[in-house]
Amino acid sequence: MLNFSVEKTDSRARLGRLELPHGTVRTPCFMPVGTQGTVKTLTPAEIAEAGAEIIVCNTYHLYLRPGHKRIQAAGGLSKFMGWNQPILTDSGGFQVYSLAAMTRVSDEGAEFQSHVDGSRHLFTPELVVEIQEALGADIAMCLDECPPYPVSRPVAEAGVARTTLWADRCSAARQPGTNLFGIVQGATFTDLREQSAKSLVALDLPGYAIGGLCLGEPSEVTYDMVGRVTALLPADRPRYLMGAGYPEDIIAATKLGVDMFDCVLPTRNGRTGTAFTSRGRVVIRNAIHADDSAPLDDACDCYACRTFSRAYLRHLFMVGEALGPKLLTLHNVRFFQRLMLGIRTAIEQGGFESWSSEFLRRYQPARGQSPGPESDTGDCPQTNGS
Amino acid sequence: MLNFSVEKTDSRARLGRLELPHGTVRTPCFMPVGTQGTVKTLTPAEIAEAGAEIIVCNTYHLYLRPGHKRIQAAGGLSKFMGWNQPILTDSGGFQVYSLAAMTRVSDEGAEFQSHVDGSRHLFTPELVVEIQEALGADIAMCLDECPPYPVSRPVAEAGVARTTLWADRCSAARQPGTNLFGIVQGATFTDLREQSAKSLVALDLPGYAIGGLCLGEPSEVTYDMVGRVTALLPADRPRYLMGAGYPEDIIAATKLGVDMFDCVLPTRNGRTGTAFTSRGRVVIRNAIHADDSAPLDDACDCYACRTFSRAYLRHLFMVGEALGPKLLTLHNVRFFQRLMLGIRTAIEQGGFESWSSEFLRRYQPARGQSPGPESDTGDCPQTNGS
Repeated sequence: MLNFSVEKTDSRARLGRLELPHGTVRTPCFMPVGTQGTVKTLTPAEIAEAGAEIIVCNTYHLYLRPGHKRIQAAGGLSKFMGWNQPILTDSGGFQVYSLAAMTRVSDEGAEFQSHVDGSRHLFTPELVVEIQEALGADIAMCLDECPPYPVSRPVAEAGVARTTLWADRCSAARQPGTNLFGIVQGATFTDLREQSAKSLVALDLPGYAIGGLCLGEPSEVTYDMVGRVTALLPADRPRYLMGAGYPEDIIAATKLGVDMFDCVLPTRNGRTGTAFTSRGRVVIRNAIHADDSAPLDDACDCYACRTFSRAYLRHLFMVGEALGPKLLTLHNVRFFQRLMLGIRTAIEQGGFESWSSEFLRRYQPARGQSPGPESDTGDCPQTNGS
Repeated sequence: MLNFSVEKTDSRARLGRLELPHGTVRTPCFMPVGTQGTVKTLTPAEIAEAGAEIIVCNTYHLYLRPGHKRIQAAGGLSKFMGWNQPILTDSGGFQVYSLAAMTRVSDEGAEFQSHVDGSRHLFTPELVVEIQEALGADIAMCLDECPPYPVSRPVAEAGVARTTLWADRCSAARQPGTNLFGIVQGATFTDLREQSAKSLVALDLPGYAIGGLCLGEPSEVTYDMVGRVTALLPADRPRYLMGAGYPEDIIAATKLGVDMFDCVLPTRNGRTGTAFTSRGRVVIRNAIHADDSAPLDDACDCYACRTFSRAYLRHLFMVGEALGPKLLTLHNVRFFQRLMLGIRTAIEQGGFESWSSEFLRRYQPARGQSPGPESDTGDCPQTNGS
């Protein structure tokens, strides 16, 4: 039910094809986040037109509303939401820790209270797999324990042990044909990361994710952890860095052999008025755009850039019109798909290093010493609600 | 700059063509409301795909934000908002009375405080024409005085007198080529309505609107006023009933010779979760739809009906996702365009009476003795914010 092939490499970067029940995904890929069964503000047609070939939905949210059994009865999540291409479902572990109240974790599972109505639930590894199978996910994720950053070594150690235990139980519980990915944890401790990776590789899963990063740690630490983990993961399995969304992080992780990315940045920043462009980020509410007849990004081919001026987009945000967040989301989702297309083309042509230098030279880094007047306070959030 | 021809009549109902600077409109037509230069939640491409050939925007809102001079500098409202078809601009008179604070009206004009920042402004007939000309409206409306319902006879009398005075000044102030419509007032007093119509007809304007109705008065009163006014209006000019949005009202007024309609009902009700369908209104949040795999309206060809189940649409509303209001808006706007297409086809074929009986038999009236469990509290709002 999953076939992954690496078609070309450029140093450690990989160009790949990931065949899944609902279609084929070219990698490296960026997966827009559709937490509640919708990529916020966009129709499935618009997501596809932006070039996305796979999206991420969330087990925790869909389990609570409308319920996985209801979605199963409706023919599965793809049919329910009108998205005919692959879906990866997050396991819900991250949301249980970040959104739910009164979480109690034991080896049995994670007990939590719904953020919607306070009802009590227990996510076990087995239930999380069952939910994702009911949703009909093309890729299901193991339940994992993802501590916040920073975290002490004993907590990180316990998290790795439990994540391995749960991955084993998830693997044992899955139906034949369920494409289950393990999630490497270990916080920022190199030996724990390596230990986590090795123990999950021993389970011989069809793919591996790296979780618990992009939570606020320095970029050098992120990249160090990613590089150490990918070196231990089997070359013939897809690798997914969870929650990485800054273009510079995606480029750096691709160079370390990562194939799949997801983040709420394009959708969340789009809704709040920040656009990603080939020349860096644009805060559309800034007064400088009030009479600007130029598009958001003259290098972009999305509907928003083909049709509207910055002045009009600013007007929509200033008066609180829903079309504004929608158009910036549309643009941002397209921006990340164009980024991935650029990355894939560069790998194919064997010039990823020079392509990425040129891209980053034009693109003003969002983080670092001098974020400039158009930076925002966006962090690097994992998929807790796009 | 305006050419109107009645191509066919069926009793008093008229099939017409209205040629305007930005394109041709087939009448009877329904104009979606795009108060702030956007039909809420929809792209211009979606508005056009729904079949709309003209929209209504609002002078009051656009004057305040982003400012008519800014829009003029951007090339006019059509270009600014990416809508390449005709636009009618409301004069702002209704909004001054309904939205602004501390309105003081004299023969000079209407002085008001902005609902946005409290700044003080004076709308004179001349300024209102100037603003609409700066926006590049295909049809501009005279400044009028529109009392609330119910209103005393002396107030209604004064409103008619001032509306006539202002129409005269609007007409004198307009540039050649500005398509200025007069607005018949007179509340629910038959003689005042007739007096208002006659005095405006004497100004020989290119079109006439009927304002100050659909404000809560009984339908029979609305229809009585409309019928009396249309009988006095010149047959070769388009007639526009402002704020009429219920399908049964549109049908009734068409039978009385009205050519143009606008209302916030399709957009506002769409956002709040009520869909207009060929079998009446559907409140999508109702639990009965939780597992319903049927589309909103199996007689509809819109993207929402072609793609999504009621169960999915309900889910979007229950979890507060922006795609829900957008899809119901899209559907409702299409519903009203299909309604008008049905009306035009029936007039062309000479069977409007039987067509409307059949339509209304299927369509459960939204008002009246027994609104049924799926009615909502929607009133018949004029264009004060879609």
